[in-house]
Amino acid sequence: ELGTSRIQLALASNVALSVIAYVMTRRLIPHFMPMFTKANLFGVDLNKVNPDKSPSTTKVPESLGTITAAVYLVIMFLFIPFYFTPFLLEFDDQKKRFPHGQLEEFICGLLSICCMIFLGFADDVLNLRWRHKMIIPTVGSLPLLMVYFVNGGSTRVIMPLQLRDVVGVHVDLGILYYVYMGMLAVFCTNAINILAGINGIEAGQSLVIALSICVHNGIEIWHDSADHQAHELSLFLMMPFVAVTSALLSFNLWPAKCFVGDTFCYFAGMTFAVSGILGHFSKTMFLFFIPQVINFIFSVPQLFKFVHCPRHRLPRLNKETGLLENSLAVIPADQYRGIGRLFIDVFALFGFISFKKSEKEIVVSNFTFINLVIRILGPTHEHNLAMWILAFQVLCSCLAFYVRYQLVLFFFDGHHDHEEVFHPK
Amino acid sequence: ELGTSRIQLALASNVALSVIAYVMTRRLIPHFMPMFTKANLFGVDLNKVNPDKSPSTTKVPESLGTITAAVYLVIMFLFIPFYFTPFLLEFDDQKKRFPHGQLEEFICGLLSICCMIFLGFADDVLNLRWRHKMIIPTVGSLPLLMVYFVNGGSTRVIMPLQLRDVVGVHVDLGILYYVYMGMLAVFCTNAINILAGINGIEAGQSLVIALSICVHNGIEIWHDSADHQAHELSLFLMMPFVAVTSALLSFNLWPAKCFVGDTFCYFAGMTFAVSGILGHFSKTMFLFFIPQVINFIFSVPQLFKFVHCPRHRLPRLNKETGLLENSLAVIPADQYRGIGRLFIDVFALFGFISFKKSEKEIVVSNFTFINLVIRILGPTHEHNLAMWILAFQVLCSCLAFYVRYQLVLFFFDGHHDHEEVFHPK
Ligand SMILES: [Mg+2]
Ligand SMILES: [Mg+2]
Repeated sequence: ELGTSRIQLALASNVALSVIAYVMTRRLIPHFMPMFTKANLFGVDLNKVNPDKSPSTTKVPESLGTITAAVYLVIMFLFIPFYFTPFLLEFDDQKKRFPHGQLEEFICGLLSICCMIFLGFADDVLNLRWRHKMIIPTVGSLPLLMVYFVNGGSTRVIMPLQLRDVVGVHVDLGILYYVYMGMLAVFCTNAINILAGINGIEAGQSLVIALSICVHNGIEIWHDSADHQAHELSLFLMMPFVAVTSALLSFNLWPAKCFVGDTFCYFAGMTFAVSGILGHFSKTMFLFFIPQVINFIFSVPQLFKFVHCPRHRLPRLNKETGLLENSLAVIPADQYRGIGRLFIDVFALFGFISFKKSEKEIVVSNFTFINLVIRILGPTHEHNLAMWILAFQVLCSCLAFYVRYQLVLFFFDGHHDHEEVFHPK
Repeated sequence: ELGTSRIQLALASNVALSVIAYVMTRRLIPHFMPMFTKANLFGVDLNKVNPDKSPSTTKVPESLGTITAAVYLVIMFLFIPFYFTPFLLEFDDQKKRFPHGQLEEFICGLLSICCMIFLGFADDVLNLRWRHKMIIPTVGSLPLLMVYFVNGGSTRVIMPLQLRDVVGVHVDLGILYYVYMGMLAVFCTNAINILAGINGIEAGQSLVIALSICVHNGIEIWHDSADHQAHELSLFLMMPFVAVTSALLSFNLWPAKCFVGDTFCYFAGMTFAVSGILGHFSKTMFLFFIPQVINFIFSVPQLFKFVHCPRHRLPRLNKETGLLENSLAVIPADQYRGIGRLFIDVFALFGFISFKKSEKEIVVSNFTFINLVIRILGPTHEHNLAMWILAFQVLCSCLAFYVRYQLVLFFFDGHHDHEEVFHPK
């Protein structure tokens, strides 16, 4: 019974702190916006025009995700005693049962997130190179991996039923498991960072993913899964994130009063990775990233330079209609060969990209998910485009829940036996 | 015996990682300097002249402490398994003896430091206001305080012999103890931040303080004090700090190729506070800050605006001699009254400041420790001035050791009984 009142206190304080976080973020963002502009942290919104239809030159403060992230950190620090102190009372006569493993995971998670915020802000200020974008999340996930190791965390994964005859029920991945966890952080941060470019899309998709994680944790806690406490931690990491991200989104929706910056993408991605690792559902986590995965796969030909990649790939504003249209990449005829040509031909065949061939050059629409959506919807207003993409993200999360709770029975014994199990000592 | 080989492994790996940290910092700082300048993070050295004796306009990259701090963090993350994994082997049959309390303190310490680096960098970029300088270290010390609380850390302090008849041997400070720990962070960061302004002084004083802490921990470990493990942790936090700070200093010495920035001062201050709290010698720590305390007390009249405070108080270059002289504050005659006048008169009486009175105004040298040293030495070359101040800091540390190990016997039973004792559960 003490267990119930403990979780009630934690839930109540987490909700209350989330509300405070929302209010603080709403107030602090406008307060800090002029300071960001003054510090040279601003951008010009390429898809806005002045009343006379000339390109907008308004300086939109950039990188306001920094404020969001700072508020989140402070709120999470304050949450620590609310969650962990009751354990002291609960097990008063046998203090060794204090959940040290969990406290360590939790602080480490915050350390990874904090490290990521710092490095993300450094990226925004210093404009780091592409290779740094891979190094940074790896560094950020180091504390989590180190403490997982020190705590003797399990590196065994459970095999699908179909493979058990061949490789056994468990396979110990050893060091590969650490590589997997590190890559999860790289994946989450960059997945959000590349599905970007229109108002509200970075914060919006993060909000949908965060809410999906909350629902997933809620279901598991409700059904009193064996891994109860892990899901609690994950939920309590996510609710304040939902709060601060909602506040940020309210300023970032069309017409954006501020941009979120790389800081926010790093912060969001790492918070998801930590939430998945601490909640022991990192594989389910991938299911909430379906649009991001589609975007990544679709972007591969341009990201890896098989097809010419212009500096900006975000959709282009038609000044007459005020609607967004596909942005185009122009490929000289002599570069239309090899693997690049294969990609272009296949994608054009399926209608994923527009395709116009002349003697001198090939003109195709850019290989991004946003351009793909415009191909389907036709010219669309920036706000509606963001909403359609977010609606698709919601749809994908519904699909994810179906896969997670129904399809999984085909491969595994029960709903839960496929998730990694962490054994803190 | 396992204990000995454990500490040998930890020491060896810490030294090796410190060497790597030094080499990395030496390489990364020049690599990143142009990126800082490009990002508008630069300053002009007011005490340098061009060959034609006009004021220098060379852009010196600022805030390079960020790189130092980032390297430090990565190295500390990597150190975690070297220190903690052997405990798993050592207590193989009774795993509950794994030092969870220590691991938690250690990660929390790193979290506080990381948080501080982020906020310090934000200060450098955004130029936060004065009141933020108080809030930031308080926020940065939150994780440490929270986990101290959750772990049921002791808030009792041991009283000097002379007071024990009145108040008892112990006094439980309760919440005041947390206020004290929070203020320690505020003190350490700002103490370094205000003894600044000539090449090499911020990094130099931090290096001397860090080495003093290393020596103190070394003595305690050598004499096998009861609080052995706490001093180990503190030492292992300091050695990589010494390494990265030496590397930074090598670029920051006269003539400075880069400035360290607020980031470094926050980072150094927080690392000292964490080292003192985790090593359980926060009171001894103050003894290593004697020049900083002198500087603070001497600065009070100007810091709190009793006496007019010009925008820059750093010493002034005499272009003819190439030596630094006192910088001056000009006070209109009608403002020469009240508490300000009292301060001026007393300080002038003792010869701490120069004093020149005319009908319209009073001209005094600025109330900083650096100006005081120039009063004593006469006009001095910038490099020599820094070296004299660092020599004084070394002298003060020697005095601190005398006080700590000899004078303390007058107030307490033994060498150690006055230090706070932390009881992780
Ligand atoms: Mg960037
Ligand atoms: Mg500043």
